Formats: sequence, C-alpha cells, structure tokens
Amino acid sequence: MTKSVGFAAQAEDKPLEHFSFQRREVGENDVHIDILFCGVCHSDLHLARNEWGGTIYPIVPGHEIVGKVRKVGSNVSKYREGDTVGVGCMVDSCRHCTNCDDGYEQYCDNGFVATYNSEEKQTNGITYGGYSDQIVVDQDFVLRVDDSLDLAGVAPLLCAGITTYSPLRHWGVGKGHKVAVVGLGGLGHVGVKIAKAMGAQVTMITTSESKVSDAKRLGADAVIISRNEDEMKAARNTFDFILNTVAVPHDLDAYANLLRRDGTMTLVGIPAEPHPSPSVGVLIGKRRSIAGSLIGGIAETQEMLDFCAEHGITADIEMIDMQDINDAYERMLKSDVKYRFVIDMKSLA
Amino acid sequence: MTKSVGFAAQAEDKPLEHFSFQRREVGENDVHIDILFCGVCHSDLHLARNEWGGTIYPIVPGHEIVGKVRKVGSNVSKYREGDTVGVGCMVDSCRHCTNCDDGYEQYCDNGFVATYNSEEKQTNGITYGGYSDQIVVDQDFVLRVDDSLDLAGVAPLLCAGITTYSPLRHWGVGKGHKVAVVGLGGLGHVGVKIAKAMGAQVTMITTSESKVSDAKRLGADAVIISRNEDEMKAARNTFDFILNTVAVPHDLDAYANLLRRDGTMTLVGIPAEPHPSPSVGVLIGKRRSIAGSLIGGIAETQEMLDFCAEHGITADIEMIDMQDINDAYERMLKSDVKYRFVIDMKSLA
Repeated sequence: MTKSVGFAAQAEDKPLEHFSFQRREVGENDVHIDILFCGVCHSDLHLARNEWGGTIYPIVPGHEIVGKVRKVGSNVSKYREGDTVGVGCMVDSCRHCTNCDDGYEQYCDNGFVATYNSEEKQTNGITYGGYSDQIVVDQDFVLRVDDSLDLAGVAPLLCAGITTYSPLRHWGVGKGHKVAVVGLGGLGHVGVKIAKAMGAQVTMITTSESKVSDAKRLGADAVIISRNEDEMKAARNTFDFILNTVAVPHDLDAYANLLRRDGTMTLVGIPAEPHPSPSVGVLIGKRRSIAGSLIGGIAETQEMLDFCAEHGITADIEMIDMQDINDAYERMLKSDVKYRFVIDMKSLA
Repeated sequence: MTKSVGFAAQAEDKPLEHFSFQRREVGENDVHIDILFCGVCHSDLHLARNEWGGTIYPIVPGHEIVGKVRKVGSNVSKYREGDTVGVGCMVDSCRHCTNCDDGYEQYCDNGFVATYNSEEKQTNGITYGGYSDQIVVDQDFVLRVDDSLDLAGVAPLLCAGITTYSPLRHWGVGKGHKVAVVGLGGLGHVGVKIAKAMGAQVTMITTSESKVSDAKRLGADAVIISRNEDEMKAARNTFDFILNTVAVPHDLDAYANLLRRDGTMTLVGIPAEPHPSPSVGVLIGKRRSIAGSLIGGIAETQEMLDFCAEHGITADIEMIDMQDINDAYERMLKSDVKYRFVIDMKSLA
C-alpha cells in the first residue's frame, strides 16, 4: 500500500477538502502513476454532491488524468518508468462479455469499474479518482500520451475528447459531411475541433451570440444562434449528423428538424430531468434517429489520443490549484470557464 | 372527366355515406384503374374524423388500393388494359428534390401528394382515395401486382406492408438478426411475416396473452407478453432491431432496454399525444437509437410487393362491404379485427 493524498468530499453538502488515503499495492499487471494534471468534468460535481444518487463517501473525483509512470508490475509490458500516460473514466471491466470482447468496455454488460466511486476489484474497496497525487491502474486501462502536446490540455481529452470523438467516428463523420455541434462547453469545444480535423463542415449551435467568434476560432465553419428562429429555419434538413452536448433538458425537436433524411442526432449528456418528449413526427418525417453514446472503449480512446496528437488538438483550459476546486465548481455551474478547468497536481505538494 | 362513386365523410362528426364525384380526365401519363379492393387503415379514420387536423371535406379515404387497369394515357408504357395494379399512400411528389431524386418520394422536401385529402396537381382539386369504384393515377405512382396472390390480401400491403418492410430493409434485417415486432395489429402482423421471410429470428411483443398462438401462427419464433416483467427482464440487451408499431403513447424505455449495443428501435406509428420522454440514459448505456420511418418510396414499394409475391405473403383480412365501413371503424377502435378490414368494391355497384 502507498500513502496518497488528494481532495475528497465527505458528504453531499460538504466542500472538497484535503484527504489522505492508501493506494493499493502495485500488482503484477498494474501501472503506478504520479498524476501531473486532472481535468474537472461536470460529472465530478454531480457525483461529489450525490446529484445522481449512489455516491459513496468519501469520494475523490477525477477521471481526466495525465501523469508519469513511477513503477510497473512484473507482467507489465506496455509501459515503463517515465512514460507519459493517461487514465480516463474506466479502470476495469468484466473483460468477458460480448461488449468487452468487442472492445466496447464502456458498454460492459456487467458494468465497468469507474475511475472513482466504483467497487475496486483488486481490494473490494472503492476507487478513488484523479484529484490526487498518484493512482494505480491495470495496464489494460492505461493510455499512452504523446509528450509533444501540452499535457494539461490533453487531460480533458480522456473524457471530453473521447465522448465526442467516439460518436463522430461511429457515425462516420468525415469529408463531405455537414455536422452540427450543439453547446459550446467542455464537450462542445473539443467536439468542434475533432469534427473539423475529421474533415467535416462544422456548424456550432449555441444560445449565445457572445460565443460566435470563439466558435470560429475553434474551427467552426458556421455558427447558428439557436434562439434565432430564422437561422434555425434556414438550417432545416441540412445536417448529416448532430452531436448534442447539452445536458440540461431542452427541446430536441428544434435540432432534430435540422437533420437531413437518415440523419442522426447523438446525445452525450444525461439531463437530471428528462427532455421534453421528442416528436415522433419529426423522426418519421425524414427517417431521423436520436441516439446516445457513452465515452469510448480503451482501444478507441488510444486512437483518439493519437488522432489528437497528429492534429495538434488539446482542450482549451484554465489551470487551477487543487485548493481552488470548490470555487471552480461554482464557476462551472455558471458556465464561467473556457472551456475546462484542469488541476495542477503540483499544488498538492 | 369520369363520373365516379364512393363513400365520403362530409364533416368530422358525420358517418361515411355514398358520394358521387368526378375523376379527372385520363392524361397522357395517367392510368385509369377500376378498383377491386381497398384496405382500411387507421389513418383513414383519423382523417375522416379530422383527428389530426387539416381534413378537407368531403373526404374519400383509402390508400391500400388494388384494381385492374381500364385505360392508359398515350405516354404510358409501363401498364396496359387489364393489368392488375396497386396504389398506395402517394399519387405524386415534387420529383426534383434530393429525396425524390434518391427514390424517397415519401420524404419529398416539398411534400408528396397523398392519395386522398391532398391537393391534386393536375386539377388543383383535392385527391379522393380508394373508397370508390375507380381512380386515375400517374403511371409513376402505380405499382404492379402479381395476379397469383389473393388480391384482397394484397391491398393492405400498399400501406401496412411497405410501412413495415421499409424499416426492416433499411436497418438491414436478415439472417442471424434478432428482431422484435411490438404490437400485433394491422402493421405488426404483416411485420412479423416480412421479418420472418427476410430470415430473421422474430419475437412478437404484445400486451395480450390471447395473441400468443396467433403470433406463432403468423411466424413469430417467440412471443413476449409486455406486461410480464420477468419475460421483459430476460429479454434485455437481446434484440438487434425493434419495429414498434404501437401508435398510442407508451413507455419506450421498456422496449429500448431490450436492444443490444448499437440496436435501433424504429417507430412507425404517430401517437395523438406524445410518448413519455424516453430515457437518455437507456440510449447512452448501449449506444441505442430511436428512429422513425414513413411508408417507403415507389421503387421500394414495388420491391416489397415482389418480395411478398415471392414469399406468398398477404395480409390476414376480413372482407366487408362498402356500406359496413362505419361499423368497421367502430370495431377497429376496439382492435376487433384480425388484422385488416378490406372493402370489396363490388358492393358499390
């Protein structure tokens, strides 16, 4: 066991505070990682405050982890000391169901082991996440990170990046496709960059006039203000694919109507309350689909990291100290971040 | 102009009654058809009673038409006098939008011309449907019907058949696929036959224990009673595709949960009130899709008729006289029909 320090919430109404705990012994298949950076995902806040139910306290959030390998177990062949690596939302899965066999650990029929707030197979304890100085992870759930990139900006790719990359790839987005990304936040801003790098013609759809120039800077070919009825009407039946990153309840029909025949709108955010029920007529009228997508498998996450390295894609971040996390949560609730907080783990020392 | 007789509703609160009207002159591209049989679709009732709004009175319903060619226009090469033909839900479309160009007249960006209650391009009048002795239709919207089949049983294929065939074909249903058909009615009973003929393993999902033996007779390999929680739970994550034919509001999640990863549930019925909003979590948890599908294009409708002829598929029908239509509507509201009423047009004489 190794003594680790981090930040944890002790109860749903308590702020995150300094927390000491043990990391498991480095097993033969394990990689022991010194964490450099950890991105701050909105689900960290939901779970710290038990807004989805099921939180086990104390909780150490964080699943957008980049660090350096300190040590590896005797069976580890993929990584060695000093390697730059990443850990995303999963640290294990059942590894024997159809979905695991197919490389879709995120859809594991027996439930994957989440990076935090999950039962840890090796110890029967609870997993603690990346808001900490170190972590021990099975090599099969560790990703290789290209050192040439800004590593703080890479951290959010481990969740925001793969959450947008996977559906864009699955639904075949590429050259000649017209794609819309709904919502310019942590997910949306990475989604625009990735869709653009895939060769698509990308439109950002946002509620806010103030985000137009930023959306274009990020690579959007066009911007639609969703509150502008004329702009929305003009865009009807024009998109092959819509990546909807908005996690608050909203009128899905307004966006589904923008899909061409056979177009798909994929939702990657789960709202706390249901969306208004989407119109069946809007779907039937052009054989449209509404789908959902959850992060990505481990192999696909590596593919995404390699793709982002090749195209020089990182997240736009604001670096914070670990001690600023509670303020950062409040600012995140007001969407006052461009576009992802990343914790500099040096601040824990 | 040719004098025609049929049955029409004169107002939303009036029963259908005998009605005399004019069919347009047979133009150079037109086929003049003596109607033998016309199926009774639930939308006939909705429209006769203006339940969807937009009904123009008098209305002559009917879009599941089988008949014999009486006469053809000078440019007509596809059909000749005496041919057995069919007419479905469409009698024209814009013919120049992307969807029409692609053979998807049902998704015409300018709106297709419906077989009844639509503006007739040739006359600027209103189209009158198949509850009548004859009809004049552009050859491009006339289908060839195989004489070897029971022609009364073919009539419902023109709507119920293509509505189920098109999504089954589009989503690639075939050998090795596990398919569920939700709802054993006019659409569902044909859907089971077609899915089975495509080579899939077919499960009928119905609320009613009393329909089990009938579902098996129609070709279902298995039947699930949707009210049986154990059966529904056992079927989770097992279907590649679900064809949902139920047009009353219901819990879509109960069925979406039965889809495997990457499975699609396609809705072909539009409920008068919205379904309860489907859970985003259920979609995201296995990258599932909910889609809609509307009838089929003309070429695909011909393909469906040929497929049904090849596999000996017709609808299970109850033949009625034209004069019984109002009683038939009442029985249809009670689902008291196995599984489609078809009007014998001899009764009009």
